[in-house]
Amino acid sequence: MKTKVAQFGLGPIGIETLRLAAAKPWVEIVGGIDIDPQKVGRSLTEVTGIKGLESVRVYSSVEQLPVKPDVALHTTVSRFKAALPQLQSLARAGISVVSSCEELLFPRLKDPAGAAELDALCQKHGARMVGTGVNPGFVMDVLPVCLTGVCRSVGKIEVTRVVNASSRRLPLQKKIGSGLDPEEFRRLFREGKMGHVGLVESLALVAHCLKWPIGPIKETCEPVIATEDIKTEFLEVKKGLTCGIHHRAEAAVHGQTVIELDLQMYLDAINPRDVVRVAGDPTIEFVETGGVQGDRATVAAVVNAVPRVLKAPPGLLLMTDLSVPCVS
Amino acid sequence: MKTKVAQFGLGPIGIETLRLAAAKPWVEIVGGIDIDPQKVGRSLTEVTGIKGLESVRVYSSVEQLPVKPDVALHTTVSRFKAALPQLQSLARAGISVVSSCEELLFPRLKDPAGAAELDALCQKHGARMVGTGVNPGFVMDVLPVCLTGVCRSVGKIEVTRVVNASSRRLPLQKKIGSGLDPEEFRRLFREGKMGHVGLVESLALVAHCLKWPIGPIKETCEPVIATEDIKTEFLEVKKGLTCGIHHRAEAAVHGQTVIELDLQMYLDAINPRDVVRVAGDPTIEFVETGGVQGDRATVAAVVNAVPRVLKAPPGLLLMTDLSVPCVS
Repeated sequence: MKTKVAQFGLGPIGIETLRLAAAKPWVEIVGGIDIDPQKVGRSLTEVTGIKGLESVRVYSSVEQLPVKPDVALHTTVSRFKAALPQLQSLARAGISVVSSCEELLFPRLKDPAGAAELDALCQKHGARMVGTGVNPGFVMDVLPVCLTGVCRSVGKIEVTRVVNASSRRLPLQKKIGSGLDPEEFRRLFREGKMGHVGLVESLALVAHCLKWPIGPIKETCEPVIATEDIKTEFLEVKKGLTCGIHHRAEAAVHGQTVIELDLQMYLDAINPRDVVRVAGDPTIEFVETGGVQGDRATVAAVVNAVPRVLKAPPGLLLMTDLSVPCVS
Repeated sequence: MKTKVAQFGLGPIGIETLRLAAAKPWVEIVGGIDIDPQKVGRSLTEVTGIKGLESVRVYSSVEQLPVKPDVALHTTVSRFKAALPQLQSLARAGISVVSSCEELLFPRLKDPAGAAELDALCQKHGARMVGTGVNPGFVMDVLPVCLTGVCRSVGKIEVTRVVNASSRRLPLQKKIGSGLDPEEFRRLFREGKMGHVGLVESLALVAHCLKWPIGPIKETCEPVIATEDIKTEFLEVKKGLTCGIHHRAEAAVHGQTVIELDLQMYLDAINPRDVVRVAGDPTIEFVETGGVQGDRATVAAVVNAVPRVLKAPPGLLLMTDLSVPCVS
């Protein structure tokens, strides 16, 4: 029996998620969902260019799907509050969800009441939901937690991720503020419109798993300034303007810093890498030179989570509640 | 409510496992089990030197435990066949097990019938069982599987682990054949008395998780020859004699090698490290310079698995069936 899958959200990430899911022999695509009137009513092949989906259509809501999917791949927004009505409609229909919504990695951090209500709704209707990706969802949270599994005790977790944004797609190059005046960047961060959504959720997930009673999360986000003119495939940044972000989150227990997440994503980044360090007994430090590739890995994380989320008990789940990640 | 734990096996690893478990605030030690008549009837503090266990005794069998534990930490033997009667007695008593028995990582490889019977017994009596450790149990199996969780597809898994045995305890230095004539080493390997128990189980677990229909596992185990006289804290090896093992296991699908595990454990090893490489889309390679410390990490892996195994459904389980590893 194949797993019936619907694709909720047909933007660039949604299309890539659908493309990967449709290629898996254990998946049957049963529908698409998108609010764009240009897409609704057309076939998924017409809308996405993916062959073999000529007879599967795009609908404007969950309720209109002709077949109930086992799981929806949800790739619409980054904020939990914006995703919540969509997730509620899926939960009420008893449809499980794997989502790339960054804040869904640990939704109770910013909205404990909304998360608790969604959890109750999932349990009532037998739906499982989880948020995942590569960051958040793996490099700065699930992987360090996994490494602690061979530690007698852990004193501190530090993750540094440096991404060379020059090799990434245009939306990422824009998202990190490329070309902005540094003061404009700082103003946007203060207004909650700049920075990596999900970084504080990664930290909160690590603290939750290690049962660390952390104090408030300290967050800084500074522009990386171009030290010379930079030209990528998509855009140009003049010397002195913003060419990326340096976003940090940390938290302490009783005044002692126990988690430090350091994320740098900028154009022409030097020594891109992932460094996952668990200071403990024993101390473990794994380094990925180059760093785990973001876009392709995020889509994979979403599709790969499907079989595991379907085996888990109903509810709003965490990636660390599921069995060990594995390609599917 | 604390988790009631019994320690089955009071050799050096068993004592270290018990020491770590007894220090966890969520654990209550309710008994020890050992066949050594010198230990039976005495208190765990007398036998192990661990304080606070003065009123907890050592028994010669599971049946004699005065309190039923939730879980037994089982650290007696490396071979599944030798462990089986002990595991059966635990299963019949409905006691769950986390074991350092290397072959229990993937027991169906060498004894599918024995594993199936034990699984049925566990399900009948509501017991959960899992074998774990650092190797096998993490570096060469669970960790590479976990990394595939962010891959769209995987073509090959390669793990290289180089351990400097000079910094390890005497039993390990002996186990790797230190001081043996190379021909004697090779004879012992042919007789199944030399080599790293669990290496082929690591490979089989990876293949199982990735659903790869591998052919026969190819295994080689060669002595590492001392190129000069070596002196450790515990022993001396003359130039020309064995100072360690180089044990490899690999397997292919349709003639294409898809898993390669390369384990080198020798005295004065150069560049000790763990290299976990998943060749796929994307390719991911994490390196631990120095390598994850074996003994301390193995004991931790066993104790840390307890909360996760108790949440899993009854049966003979794999580490990859449990939720993401985490320090407990």
